[in-house]
Amino acid sequence: MSLKLTILGFNSAVPTAFTHPTSQLLNIAERYFLIDCGEGTQVQLRKAKAKFNRINHVFISHLHGDHVFGLIGLISTLQLLGRDMPFHIHGPKGIEEFIMTQLRLTESTCSFKIIFNELSSKKSVIVFEDDMVEVISIPLNHRVYTNGYLFREKKKARKLNIDAIAEFPEIEICDYQNLKNGKDYTLESGEIIPNNYLTFDEQKSLSYAFCSDTRYKPDIIPLIKEVDLLYHESTFLHELKELAMYTGHTTAKEAGIIAREANVKKLVIGHFSNRYHDYSVLLDEAKQEFPNTILPEILGTIKIKVNS
Amino acid sequence: MSLKLTILGFNSAVPTAFTHPTSQLLNIAERYFLIDCGEGTQVQLRKAKAKFNRINHVFISHLHGDHVFGLIGLISTLQLLGRDMPFHIHGPKGIEEFIMTQLRLTESTCSFKIIFNELSSKKSVIVFEDDMVEVISIPLNHRVYTNGYLFREKKKARKLNIDAIAEFPEIEICDYQNLKNGKDYTLESGEIIPNNYLTFDEQKSLSYAFCSDTRYKPDIIPLIKEVDLLYHESTFLHELKELAMYTGHTTAKEAGIIAREANVKKLVIGHFSNRYHDYSVLLDEAKQEFPNTILPEILGTIKIKVNS
Repeated sequence: MSLKLTILGFNSAVPTAFTHPTSQLLNIAERYFLIDCGEGTQVQLRKAKAKFNRINHVFISHLHGDHVFGLIGLISTLQLLGRDMPFHIHGPKGIEEFIMTQLRLTESTCSFKIIFNELSSKKSVIVFEDDMVEVISIPLNHRVYTNGYLFREKKKARKLNIDAIAEFPEIEICDYQNLKNGKDYTLESGEIIPNNYLTFDEQKSLSYAFCSDTRYKPDIIPLIKEVDLLYHESTFLHELKELAMYTGHTTAKEAGIIAREANVKKLVIGHFSNRYHDYSVLLDEAKQEFPNTILPEILGTIKIKVNS
Repeated sequence: MSLKLTILGFNSAVPTAFTHPTSQLLNIAERYFLIDCGEGTQVQLRKAKAKFNRINHVFISHLHGDHVFGLIGLISTLQLLGRDMPFHIHGPKGIEEFIMTQLRLTESTCSFKIIFNELSSKKSVIVFEDDMVEVISIPLNHRVYTNGYLFREKKKARKLNIDAIAEFPEIEICDYQNLKNGKDYTLESGEIIPNNYLTFDEQKSLSYAFCSDTRYKPDIIPLIKEVDLLYHESTFLHELKELAMYTGHTTAKEAGIIAREANVKKLVIGHFSNRYHDYSVLLDEAKQEFPNTILPEILGTIKIKVNS
């Protein structure tokens, strides 16, 4: 089992010939989730050779152009590709009007259903869940209503140790679910066989937290505690801390502190101001606080494997 | 004097890794006009090294995504660049709501004024004019309300032939404007000096007609008669004439016929269906009807000079 994050764009503000606004494609528990969708995202998806029709959910952090202006184009393309599966859009209140007004005024007919999940809570809520994965909002502190998202695999069942079970003929198939759930087994003699003798440990559940855009906000730490991968915005160096505060952003040093305090496994920083051309200065600053920090690469994929 | 047309994108429907939806930058009479604005246009403008703040007018043919989805991103970037000059948007009725809804929902503040000129006439109207140039709508026949645009330099004044004028001391400076306007001069003796002895012929006024998207529509021919450059959509080969009619497009053969019948100087075709990878088949078909046809090139500039 693995978690794969493909970076489609990681810059702030305006797209240029060589930089792309925020968008990421997350593959977790065999689901493909699109996170944010700045202008040009559909072209980046093509370059990443993504299968458009495997993307059923998009999660928008906030309604600023560099995170959402590519969404209408993507929807339009899905229509031209003949999509018929529903398409789920999770994002701040207002996103339905934002998209539906554009569809109405361009006289677009949609062959598929768009299901909006508008968020307005200032508390962390479950945004989406199915049998394998859950997505939880991370309330952030930007200039407009903004959420990050925590994606995590649900706790997996323990795997049966068939050889060990075979030693106890009185254990029947109908008992297996209890064993997978972690229960000990009591023999007719009254002897208790500990669950960890009859099963293997469950596979670790992987998790990814996306946090952009936000001021330094340490109260998210309990929510993102020990995630396998954290993406945290680092728009400025700490020497521009006041500008970061004023514009609703975080410094590289602060992103590193968040990662360290949350005891995450790995930090990837992004959403860099266009003033920086050499991102290594941002990387170095974050690493001072949290050594296992990396820079994103355009169309690069970060893979997190169980036990990696 | 010259007219320069830079092709920012010329494909139909969806942007891909290698193709770009419709957008053009026209330089005529020292004005810079943006024509249509599909997703990614601002990046193409950067690649073309265009000066964003010299663009004061954008002309949108119709409200289909491949012609307009890049406009909100461009406006957002103009704002971030600190623009203060007004920005004029000419396009179909609905474009104001289209843009203003997006600005409102993204809580964008605009440091400059956006002036909308919404078109709804089914007849050709003057869309814009100043002392040097005029822009006239070309009503087209697509699936939604659509206009092409005719851009033409205004008729220029004749240039004074100072040596010839010097032969007649009684001609005074206050007479010069009449001479520039083409009037003959009557001497006190009653002798008439023909204007073409006292002035040089006026410089030719250049013109460009943009026609996309449309079904074959020969009634535009009088409007675009003898333009120096015609861009006409050619979405399909003529073997797909019925599909062209159904989807509201023109074939390469039909574009060639329009160019020939309008006696234009040069035709550039575009808006090709993504089914074509080798555009030479479309060029060959158009050339059968109108030999001086060319293919567009991404970021290529077509220059039309006086007497060229």
